[in-house]
Amino acid sequence: MSQAMKVLAATARAATRTLGTCPDAQRAGALRQAAGALRAGRQAVLEANAADCAAAADLPAALLARLHLDAAKVEEMARGLEAVAALPDPLGRVDLRRRLDEGLELTRITVPLGVLAVIFESRPDAAVQIGALAVKSGNAALLKGGREAARTVALLVDLLRGALAAEGLPPGALQRLEDRDEVDALLALHGDVDLVIPRGSSDLVRAIQARTRIPVLGHAEGVCHLYLHAAADPAMALDLVRDAKLQYPAACNAVETVLVDAAAAPRLVPALVAALPEVAFRGCPRARALAPMAEAAEADWDAEYGAPILALRVVDGLDEALAHIAAHGSGHTEAIVTGDPEAAARFLREVDAAGVYHNASTRFADGYRYGFGAEVGIATGRLHARGPVGLEGLVTVKYLLQGQGHRVADYAGPGARPFRHEDLPPA
Amino acid sequence: MSQAMKVLAATARAATRTLGTCPDAQRAGALRQAAGALRAGRQAVLEANAADCAAAADLPAALLARLHLDAAKVEEMARGLEAVAALPDPLGRVDLRRRLDEGLELTRITVPLGVLAVIFESRPDAAVQIGALAVKSGNAALLKGGREAARTVALLVDLLRGALAAEGLPPGALQRLEDRDEVDALLALHGDVDLVIPRGSSDLVRAIQARTRIPVLGHAEGVCHLYLHAAADPAMALDLVRDAKLQYPAACNAVETVLVDAAAAPRLVPALVAALPEVAFRGCPRARALAPMAEAAEADWDAEYGAPILALRVVDGLDEALAHIAAHGSGHTEAIVTGDPEAAARFLREVDAAGVYHNASTRFADGYRYGFGAEVGIATGRLHARGPVGLEGLVTVKYLLQGQGHRVADYAGPGARPFRHEDLPPA
Repeated sequence: MSQAMKVLAATARAATRTLGTCPDAQRAGALRQAAGALRAGRQAVLEANAADCAAAADLPAALLARLHLDAAKVEEMARGLEAVAALPDPLGRVDLRRRLDEGLELTRITVPLGVLAVIFESRPDAAVQIGALAVKSGNAALLKGGREAARTVALLVDLLRGALAAEGLPPGALQRLEDRDEVDALLALHGDVDLVIPRGSSDLVRAIQARTRIPVLGHAEGVCHLYLHAAADPAMALDLVRDAKLQYPAACNAVETVLVDAAAAPRLVPALVAALPEVAFRGCPRARALAPMAEAAEADWDAEYGAPILALRVVDGLDEALAHIAAHGSGHTEAIVTGDPEAAARFLREVDAAGVYHNASTRFADGYRYGFGAEVGIATGRLHARGPVGLEGLVTVKYLLQGQGHRVADYAGPGARPFRHEDLPPA
Repeated sequence: MSQAMKVLAATARAATRTLGTCPDAQRAGALRQAAGALRAGRQAVLEANAADCAAAADLPAALLARLHLDAAKVEEMARGLEAVAALPDPLGRVDLRRRLDEGLELTRITVPLGVLAVIFESRPDAAVQIGALAVKSGNAALLKGGREAARTVALLVDLLRGALAAEGLPPGALQRLEDRDEVDALLALHGDVDLVIPRGSSDLVRAIQARTRIPVLGHAEGVCHLYLHAAADPAMALDLVRDAKLQYPAACNAVETVLVDAAAAPRLVPALVAALPEVAFRGCPRARALAPMAEAAEADWDAEYGAPILALRVVDGLDEALAHIAAHGSGHTEAIVTGDPEAAARFLREVDAAGVYHNASTRFADGYRYGFGAEVGIATGRLHARGPVGLEGLVTVKYLLQGQGHRVADYAGPGARPFRHEDLPPA
């Protein structure tokens, strides 16, 4: 198994040598071909998907809904392929050009990361979406979907591979794994696989993080806070709590705990409870003294509900709010609501998270809303990429040095030539 | 042990909240204070070092030389502290500013990584150097030196901590570990420590990489190649082989294998052997047919000699050179010598390594030579940092979003407001 998996990874690595060095027109061309093939093959895709859905009839309704495709979703996938094709080329971007000395020029350019492993659950469209991002950025991807989506994913990946081949690109850049056993072998390929991208529940992400030494892009938790400062506009505060909790409670960037400044609590806590009858509040003793609600247990301060439930805590000012967030935040997205610019500045400066917001809903933490055109995932780790990750999370850099026979010996010891280190405009 | 180590890491994390948000003047001030304290305390440092050296008298001479400090080295450390203090502030740099909509502005700024673990061998000056880079970039560092340097490192770290305290910064930002056992506890702190920086031999790096799930900045191997293309200028080719192999054979960026194009081999191979009598060549059969040399075993193509030994292989053109480098290179630095711009362009494009050079010695792969002002290490991984890493390898980013009560609900569903996504000049 492990040997077979190494062969797959080596095939993928070899494919990146072509995909990562071909012009953008060819990568984008393959994605547009795939969009056409998807529209042309819509009937076959829907039939395969119907067979998957029939076989998975005893799955929970929510999973089944994610598994199910219809004509509109197929068209959405095709448009997604075209949208990724149209994004600016993420490769070959020059972010440093420096003349080290006369005739000795250093350039830093973006290149593909290499080989990605993508592990996703029931949504078959994840294969198309991440496959497209991988191709656009010159990476190879090993794709492992949920067993329940096997027929649909097989067809979709074949279709993408066909489009690569039609553009003269190696289909080995996209490969599908079939067995659950293969995931363990894949996650052991430290050195052969550069990045693992899990798409699914927090449990999936956690399970993968625990089982591999390969870097994992993503986040297991989204425990986001809204801090309603003493100088918060009350109407804005209610509005933002409503949006951050209720606009889509299952999202990772939905708020889980609201911190209310003691000075504003007598007004805001009853107002919140009255304004949001669809929310189940779990409060600290001071919050419960101001409005009827359930009692928060210690575990509530670390809970990601993914549901219309809110933990509510009264804090004595900014220091206590910052300390609570430092102790319980997951480094995803944290927001303050205040009309006081100094309090806002301190919150923005001192909170350590991928996103720190002032007077805006935590739900804005998203690659599309940030204008990245695509989202690979949201990263809460500190290395490589942090926050919503667009195509730039799928590239790394290499340094090119072009000389005329330059030797280090001339820049060392007595009589050494000095370096010039003169920055040049990007070519 | 593990609990005590978690406490150390938590103290370090808390210290970064101050160090990472204070002005550069304060961080730089602490480093200048440390330089003064080092000069004032020179005698004590030299005495502690003498005691370390006496106790380590039976170490190999090379290790002892690295352990030993004299007045000039102390002055060099003090100047190093001042040089790091004078570098541009790596924190708070704005690399993206975007108006998402009227009154809703996104800014991405650099912030410290967080908590570093630095593990180094006999050189006590590594504590000062990496400690300085950590402070300048607002990071905390847990420092573990070799047992043989214990007295010297203890004094140096105390001195840096004193300088932090004198500037009103938390000394907990720099903490020294004493026990070898503590290293294992440290390397288990996935989540509490953000980055491990090993400074020492390849064996040290490999041992650390194998023992931790925390990201490791560095490289275990530097198997660099020089490819002498058919259109290489012969004098330049000899010059660059000499520089890349002999200027400092123990360096990771020294060349280990020279690939010679078959078309140029009859002239270049005998010329190389004649020009570099101090190098022990190990050749493939075709090279040995052109000049007397030892026979290369299969293992020679993957060897990092760190000594005046060169593996020599005759290849049939650029394709075979690229394939050899893809199979045996360690992703560090690879160079082509050629007068043919097309061959050079293809080599620069297709070789996958942190540094890819044309007509320049591989020995240029170095943070100081690249003009970074400091070097944390050279990374051959693809995530986070690649190539010589300056202070920018010790920072990450956070996204700040400043609104006026903006809600996601207004940008969703029927009648949704469109985003503007208008890039703004960095403030």
